[in-house]
Amino acid sequence: MKIKAVLFDIDNTLYNTKALVVNSRRNAVKAMIEAGLDVNVEDALKKLSEIVRKYGPNYDQHYDRLLEVYDIPSNPRIIAAGIIAYHTTKVAYLVPYSDTTPTLLKLVSRNIKLGVVTDGIPAKQWEKLIRLGLQHFFDVVIISEEYNTQKPDEKLFKEAVKKLSLKPSEVMMVGDRVDKDISGANKAGLTSVQVLYPEVDEKPPEKKLEYPDYVIGRLSELLDLI
Amino acid sequence: MKIKAVLFDIDNTLYNTKALVVNSRRNAVKAMIEAGLDVNVEDALKKLSEIVRKYGPNYDQHYDRLLEVYDIPSNPRIIAAGIIAYHTTKVAYLVPYSDTTPTLLKLVSRNIKLGVVTDGIPAKQWEKLIRLGLQHFFDVVIISEEYNTQKPDEKLFKEAVKKLSLKPSEVMMVGDRVDKDISGANKAGLTSVQVLYPEVDEKPPEKKLEYPDYVIGRLSELLDLI
Repeated sequence: MKIKAVLFDIDNTLYNTKALVVNSRRNAVKAMIEAGLDVNVEDALKKLSEIVRKYGPNYDQHYDRLLEVYDIPSNPRIIAAGIIAYHTTKVAYLVPYSDTTPTLLKLVSRNIKLGVVTDGIPAKQWEKLIRLGLQHFFDVVIISEEYNTQKPDEKLFKEAVKKLSLKPSEVMMVGDRVDKDISGANKAGLTSVQVLYPEVDEKPPEKKLEYPDYVIGRLSELLDLI
Repeated sequence: MKIKAVLFDIDNTLYNTKALVVNSRRNAVKAMIEAGLDVNVEDALKKLSEIVRKYGPNYDQHYDRLLEVYDIPSNPRIIAAGIIAYHTTKVAYLVPYSDTTPTLLKLVSRNIKLGVVTDGIPAKQWEKLIRLGLQHFFDVVIISEEYNTQKPDEKLFKEAVKKLSLKPSEVMMVGDRVDKDISGANKAGLTSVQVLYPEVDEKPPEKKLEYPDYVIGRLSELLDLI
């Protein structure tokens, strides 16, 4: 196999999204309590988690809904306190895994092209790449919303391959999710690699209909595969 | 000439230090005024500039001295306001020139080794590299204080060459200052390149006893020299 390009998922692949979400939500709830919300931290986190599941992560009124669940009248001061603490914490956790940048640099030095295939809101995903300090590393960045679809749609992976002027057999896809990254990459004819950092992998075992070509425990292990 | 490594100065070479200093000082003085210091902004900036010249940039009581110059009793609230505003502004300006990271990535892809030779306090210079998002790019980082000397001491450049296991003729040094970067690089037998971004170059003409091998207007022009 002669791999000429590697595509990456962003969340939980280039950085620890789980740590970001857990700590940002906790600090948001604590700041809302500090601003006057009289609730229990753990109970509020559980309710917030249900709200995010119901409305999706990119909904912009999670905290309004949280106050409603507690039968508390709308309170912009408390909501603002939550938003600020979430944002401040998020920024602090938008740092790459320790081996992300060194691994990408080694791939660049081997003349491997790099790309991103991700779901999410384009400006939010670019914010992540910029805050991670990785915005200049990628020759192609495919964000599913711009194609009115989502991973694992093979169209996204084929588009990345096309933009790189390569063949599917020359491209590798690296991501944490079998249902999104591995499934789509397999359908598009790419070499698929599942990366599962130990601190992130607490997902219940998936009913596997798709299998990655390789499973690695951290990005630097890619250097042995290519 | 077959260049195998490029060494860089940090300040005004990898990022716009002048913009950082000008804006951080102005915001510091404005914050001190907001906190109660009753002075004219431009006058205070002029006095602050004289204090920095007298005590050096790494002295830690510039604002104490500023209050003294105005015959104002020590006031920690005003001093803290200045420190906070300076720091917040500094962080906002610690971003690479637009072509810094793309140029470094292209050099990496050509298998050119990268390094830093800089004056200054080690932890402060590393803070700059980390905030610039460049801490993983360099194979060697030489900070003069760790060698009890300063640029243009050729020892620093020779140490970098040695750590890279190369010959001086295989190494290029890039910096903005003739008296520091070019002079030292020339003495050590390196190829010397002066980079003078238009927005930074307001220095009075130097009495040139040393000349760079090349002068460029931005880092990306390096790619045509190597």
